[in-house]
Amino acid sequence: MPENKIHHAEVEVLGTPKIPSPLPFDIFTPEESKVTVPVDHDSEKDHPENFVYYSLNAAGPRDNIYFDPSKTKCAIATCGGLCPGINDVIRAIVMEAYYQYGMTSILGIRFGLEGFIPKFGHEVWELTPDTVADIHEFGGTILGSSRGPQPPEEIVDALERMNINILFLIGGDGTMKAASAIAEEVVKRQLKISIIGIPKTIDNDINFVSRTFGFDTAVTKATEAIRCAHTEALGAPNGIGMVKFMGRESGFIAAEAALALKEVNIVLIPEKPFELEGKNGLLQYLDRRLQQRGHAVIVVAEGAGQDIYRREYQDSLEKGNTDASGNPILGDICSLLQDRIKDYFKQKDLPITLKFIDPSYIIRSIPANSTDRIYCGFLGQNAVHAAMSGKTNMVVSKQQDQFVYLPLNFVIQGRKKIDTKSNYWRAVLESTGQPISLQD
Amino acid sequence: MPENKIHHAEVEVLGTPKIPSPLPFDIFTPEESKVTVPVDHDSEKDHPENFVYYSLNAAGPRDNIYFDPSKTKCAIATCGGLCPGINDVIRAIVMEAYYQYGMTSILGIRFGLEGFIPKFGHEVWELTPDTVADIHEFGGTILGSSRGPQPPEEIVDALERMNINILFLIGGDGTMKAASAIAEEVVKRQLKISIIGIPKTIDNDINFVSRTFGFDTAVTKATEAIRCAHTEALGAPNGIGMVKFMGRESGFIAAEAALALKEVNIVLIPEKPFELEGKNGLLQYLDRRLQQRGHAVIVVAEGAGQDIYRREYQDSLEKGNTDASGNPILGDICSLLQDRIKDYFKQKDLPITLKFIDPSYIIRSIPANSTDRIYCGFLGQNAVHAAMSGKTNMVVSKQQDQFVYLPLNFVIQGRKKIDTKSNYWRAVLESTGQPISLQD
Amino acid sequence: MPENKIHHAEVEVLGTPKIPSPLPFDIFTPEESKVTVPVDHDSEKDHPENFVYYSLNAAGPRDNIYFDPSKTKCAIATCGGLCPGINDVIRAIVMEAYYQYGMTSILGIRFGLEGFIPKFGHEVWELTPDTVADIHEFGGTILGSSRGPQPPEEIVDALERMNINILFLIGGDGTMKAASAIAEEVVKRQLKISIIGIPKTIDNDINFVSRTFGFDTAVTKATEAIRCAHTEALGAPNGIGMVKFMGRESGFIAAEAALALKEVNIVLIPEKPFELEGKNGLLQYLDRRLQQRGHAVIVVAEGAGQDIYRREYQDSLEKGNTDASGNPILGDICSLLQDRIKDYFKQKDLPITLKFIDPSYIIRSIPANSTDRIYCGFLGQNAVHAAMSGKTNMVVSKQQDQFVYLPLNFVIQGRKKIDTKSNYWRAVLESTGQPISLQD
Amino acid sequence: MPENKIHHAEVEVLGTPKIPSPLPFDIFTPEESKVTVPVDHDSEKDHPENFVYYSLNAAGPRDNIYFDPSKTKCAIATCGGLCPGINDVIRAIVMEAYYQYGMTSILGIRFGLEGFIPKFGHEVWELTPDTVADIHEFGGTILGSSRGPQPPEEIVDALERMNINILFLIGGDGTMKAASAIAEEVVKRQLKISIIGIPKTIDNDINFVSRTFGFDTAVTKATEAIRCAHTEALGAPNGIGMVKFMGRESGFIAAEAALALKEVNIVLIPEKPFELEGKNGLLQYLDRRLQQRGHAVIVVAEGAGQDIYRREYQDSLEKGNTDASGNPILGDICSLLQDRIKDYFKQKDLPITLKFIDPSYIIRSIPANSTDRIYCGFLGQNAVHAAMSGKTNMVVSKQQDQFVYLPLNFVIQGRKKIDTKSNYWRAVLESTGQPISLQD
Repeated sequence: MPENKIHHAEVEVLGTPKIPSPLPFDIFTPEESKVTVPVDHDSEKDHPENFVYYSLNAAGPRDNIYFDPSKTKCAIATCGGLCPGINDVIRAIVMEAYYQYGMTSILGIRFGLEGFIPKFGHEVWELTPDTVADIHEFGGTILGSSRGPQPPEEIVDALERMNINILFLIGGDGTMKAASAIAEEVVKRQLKISIIGIPKTIDNDINFVSRTFGFDTAVTKATEAIRCAHTEALGAPNGIGMVKFMGRESGFIAAEAALALKEVNIVLIPEKPFELEGKNGLLQYLDRRLQQRGHAVIVVAEGAGQDIYRREYQDSLEKGNTDASGNPILGDICSLLQDRIKDYFKQKDLPITLKFIDPSYIIRSIPANSTDRIYCGFLGQNAVHAAMSGKTNMVVSKQQDQFVYLPLNFVIQGRKKIDTKSNYWRAVLESTGQPISLQD
Repeated sequence: MPENKIHHAEVEVLGTPKIPSPLPFDIFTPEESKVTVPVDHDSEKDHPENFVYYSLNAAGPRDNIYFDPSKTKCAIATCGGLCPGINDVIRAIVMEAYYQYGMTSILGIRFGLEGFIPKFGHEVWELTPDTVADIHEFGGTILGSSRGPQPPEEIVDALERMNINILFLIGGDGTMKAASAIAEEVVKRQLKISIIGIPKTIDNDINFVSRTFGFDTAVTKATEAIRCAHTEALGAPNGIGMVKFMGRESGFIAAEAALALKEVNIVLIPEKPFELEGKNGLLQYLDRRLQQRGHAVIVVAEGAGQDIYRREYQDSLEKGNTDASGNPILGDICSLLQDRIKDYFKQKDLPITLKFIDPSYIIRSIPANSTDRIYCGFLGQNAVHAAMSGKTNMVVSKQQDQFVYLPLNFVIQGRKKIDTKSNYWRAVLESTGQPISLQD
Repeated sequence: MPENKIHHAEVEVLGTPKIPSPLPFDIFTPEESKVTVPVDHDSEKDHPENFVYYSLNAAGPRDNIYFDPSKTKCAIATCGGLCPGINDVIRAIVMEAYYQYGMTSILGIRFGLEGFIPKFGHEVWELTPDTVADIHEFGGTILGSSRGPQPPEEIVDALERMNINILFLIGGDGTMKAASAIAEEVVKRQLKISIIGIPKTIDNDINFVSRTFGFDTAVTKATEAIRCAHTEALGAPNGIGMVKFMGRESGFIAAEAALALKEVNIVLIPEKPFELEGKNGLLQYLDRRLQQRGHAVIVVAEGAGQDIYRREYQDSLEKGNTDASGNPILGDICSLLQDRIKDYFKQKDLPITLKFIDPSYIIRSIPANSTDRIYCGFLGQNAVHAAMSGKTNMVVSKQQDQFVYLPLNFVIQGRKKIDTKSNYWRAVLESTGQPISLQD
Repeated sequence: MPENKIHHAEVEVLGTPKIPSPLPFDIFTPEESKVTVPVDHDSEKDHPENFVYYSLNAAGPRDNIYFDPSKTKCAIATCGGLCPGINDVIRAIVMEAYYQYGMTSILGIRFGLEGFIPKFGHEVWELTPDTVADIHEFGGTILGSSRGPQPPEEIVDALERMNINILFLIGGDGTMKAASAIAEEVVKRQLKISIIGIPKTIDNDINFVSRTFGFDTAVTKATEAIRCAHTEALGAPNGIGMVKFMGRESGFIAAEAALALKEVNIVLIPEKPFELEGKNGLLQYLDRRLQQRGHAVIVVAEGAGQDIYRREYQDSLEKGNTDASGNPILGDICSLLQDRIKDYFKQKDLPITLKFIDPSYIIRSIPANSTDRIYCGFLGQNAVHAAMSGKTNMVVSKQQDQFVYLPLNFVIQGRKKIDTKSNYWRAVLESTGQPISLQD
């Protein structure tokens, strides 16, 4: 591993930590600890000779801290769509801050960034170990959430007004951009406020994050819907079960769920274009499958086939339209697929039975499973360790089994996608038996 | 209980049972055993003085049987939509017929009534204890199903051709009517074929059946969707979670699920008309609820509000249109509700977040829970006992904790509905807190 | 149903209810409503001609009530072992009393009857809708429990001291006896305090109660242990899986779980004596089973085979010894069985693998499932209806799908047992394939 | 990362792979692909500067293979205790070998190594996609298992007799040693038989394996028992819930489960000695905890406190005694703890309620969860890839998210343990609140 292939990344600090840590155990992670990890792209797993390595700050408690716990006030806000594990992160932050560092003033900002803006009139909650003790048993976020940006200036106004020293922001891509803008505004005003992001996306598509929290739970739950689609498909002559999963720009849930319950025959993801027509197209492949086996299960990531959608419904979906969170509005590919499949077999005079399942809100609103709970626990603890040692403008991440601190700008440039030339995608194809390409 | 209030019902027999039962245990239910039960209408539970009682044949093995097991061939077919527990009934029939009565020829008809009609070309399966040993771990029906009627003559042709002595039909309202027509055709041809129905409907709306199999499982699973809708509703300012449940003409799943997870604020069922507009209408009530609590959960049985739907979309839904099973096509009340709710609050300039969950195919395709498994076991066993003792043109039912045999015509006239003047519905209203009427 | 076979039972009242009910819905159960039910013994199900019928007070809200809600204070205590659903009953009582009747003073007595006795120093909790809102998501009892009696005089002292008008006691056999003694003491002091019992026993062995709350949940969970025992048995040459279930004097959980998951080969219950030795004894039967199939699953109710235990370990278990709740201490039959089975096959030089699972505390401490939740909801509501209408010295029960009020003395005389001559037990034998008798 | 810190490890090969791979997709992992990973010890995570790195063969399909699939016969055997996921590994091997490589002769050896030895008389099964299609829905191993070694010579005799070219052995430490001895015997006889190990241990204590399959499922299930213990502890005055988990020499399940459900107050593991007596001992700590909070949950890995056990029961447990698998027999520490805890509080005259739960057989015999299913799928596929490319005397492992091939001798020297000076153990202590040491 030649040294020139290693990039060094250092997170920002507010100042030199000089206060001895109050943590009761004599186990600290030295400030200079680094972990060297290859960028976690699946393609690279198969060709390690091309790896690019990053040397990153190891996460963990430092022996000296920057903030005096007794005088420090922190706040937590949760933004964007629901995802299993948010409550676990909140709980971990509160427990760590309260019991380990002795910080007693922990605020819960209600309904995401809206909670900072006076005109919305949302109240602010005091969070204590008692109020969060059981919240991991419930899905969603006890704080509530909202979508869309709010002016960074007004947010920093609120932070100043409430004397907040540390802000923990749990949210997706847009929220991490907001965190970055807030951190910038903090610098501009020469304030000493630590801004710590904990990236959240059920799609698992955040750069430099091996696996986002909640993803494991989501996949587990997703397999239930696949099992049901399979049962429905088996239950009728020429039965087709179609399941839609989250995945706007990357098809991780769809692919992973297909690996977890190998009853899926076709997986469609945004990363891999396909065609409906033509001898290698989806419809003919489905036809052959029905002739051979009498049933089929199709799993569709919501962002799959958008080029087809736009081609067929040019007028209804202007490029550039976005939702409240600033994401492009996606065409409803599953409706299109259902219509086209029904038409195709009607024309062939082959009666089919097509059942469609959209389990999205069920998947994202359940409580985290054990794996995600443990993960969220470490994320929350390390977020507090980071903040207390004076770090800012950063996120907590896990890279190859090791927790690290990453500059915020690492995660907001581009998204992680499935490499369709990787062994990972290969395993999906093997499992489904679908051809490498559903287009000519 | 004056004698004149008791109706006597006797099921049809093919002839006198003269063969000593081969069952290994000396425990039989005498032919003359009757159970006297009030018709199971909830309203009557509250006013027992008005009860009408039925004296019915007690289910169970008889000491003499009609068919010689070694020369008897039976067949099983499953029809209509999926429902948890079908495989358990199949398994119980096979196990009872094979191990207890020593019958070795048990056929599985594929894809419902279609399986009898040669033109569909479906194969017929031999069922043995080995082939059914593990099927209770899977949802759906291993035999497959189909909708819609087939000519009774052709079905009886098939029964004759295959030398079938006993036909077990598992299905809903339409299937029970088909069973009745088949039994009639059998009589017309002076054949000795026993036709035994096992009523199946996830809606729980079969007359003279306290609780259809699969209903308990369905309600259990339904509560998951309610929990998710509640989580979503709590997760956003003015969050509304809406869940659609099965229930074409009766709202049992919706009502029962609301009793099981008391986070529901409004339940809409076919039995109770409501209005959208007006000071007591749904929209204003929802508005008040949001103002007071900031979130709401609405549960909708698919057959609710059909009068509203027809009024608003007169053209799109002509009365008299039916689906493959002969059921009237229902208007998509949930889309209508979503549109109208969004419009209402848009006009009021109150931003809401509405999440809609339709868990139908997930609910109906899971394996049966313990309660339904036990229930299905008894249904299957008693179906075999009934057939072996020469009964026909009947169904197995459970009335107030007791298994009985009912003439087929009992269950095909009308449907069971929720009495909205009963303590049962009262309990739903208490639980949701909704007003007794959502119309003026 | 001749009139002379009907017994009439009337529950005690504190006085005439004269206050119009504040309930918002115009749906009441008239005071004179009776439900006529056969005593729920399984044996009788098979021979309805022998039924004895009881005419009982129908449960439900009355149009006039005895206590003035605004001046009424009630208390809830939970006693004995844990059982799924206790929190649901507590929740239902609080919600009904608070929201429907407008009662605002509801006390939670901590740790069962101990909570009334000053020397234990337990605090008393105020219960409100907020404090109980989520408790149904947790197993056990939020109030805590304790075993054993406390002097009725001291309990009534406490009721007087705290000005309690209504006492809800949730507990088993012993607790119902305590309730009866308390009611007697109340009468002796000429007080107007309503004592309402809600019978709880995971064993399902309470007379005049078709099915105790929590039983359905317990059976569901019990099947998990059976599945594991089966997996273990299959996983080794001559594998034996043994599972112990609760059931001191009746084997309902063992029997019901064996019906729910039909992998069980032998069920041992207190109601059916068996022998180890002899050609029809357990050991030889097990031997034959292993020779034929290579594995076996044995389910044992904890009270089974006590005569064998006493015979073999005369000294260690003196008759008459009792535990804190006054129940006789049972011999550890499962240890005895394991020892004897291992000895037997060692002597035969046949290596076996025996795995023993005792899931008792897992079964009893989980949250109630949907079915039990609904049931507990009705129990709690009807308990409040009963108390408010001035009834006392009674329990709420469900008989054949109908809720009724029963004098307390109905449930404390004797226990419900499995009739081993019933179709119910027959179904268990059919399912396991075990012989009707495991003794000569 | 200086080159001198990198160890190079190369797995053994039977010969040069010269046959073009029949795999349908053009995605291969080059033979020369290496992945460089630090040894996965928790302690090192915190001090990356001390890492020792290994450069290992990347797992995956090669473009040339050694065995001609049409002439190749493989066999699978499963050994040792049950563990979630074994069936998934079997299924993945069969599916990969059959569908991807076109190998049609796949044997299932019954009951572990016993299956090779004629005197046991176990049959051999043919495995096909049909026979394994649904086995992932069941726990355990469809092949059965057994403990203990068998002579490598006799095993190789059997391999020769059955013309087996590839042997997949799924098992623990002992089995990997057996695999090594078999591989040695194969070399001695100059045969070309590939011996591939897939390490299995629910304890997660295999060297060079980040996480053994089934561990994630085990931890998830383990949390259920913790939740029950917590419920029991809360349900009585001075309630103590004690749960025993697997973990003979390392406490991974205990520690991980405590992180996953943070209701645990004390975790005892083999890696961390403790004392009962003394002011810092377990008993006094438990005493203080009860005084402060009124309840406690203790989680015990079965191998914890063995020094105490030996000290107290010297005679009953001679060092050197081993079980059928060659593991030392452990003293029953949980019985000892229960006795001593009861004695202690009896002496103090403080009534406690102690409930003990041993969920071991329930944990290990359930089906794998999604995460383990995916993992097992990759293990099985990579095992087949390895074998087909002519590798032998090796295991498939996952190191930091990357699948690798490891020489068998890597995993059989020593066991992985929890570093009690790591941040991982620290997180456990933080979560439980227990002191860093329970001895003076």
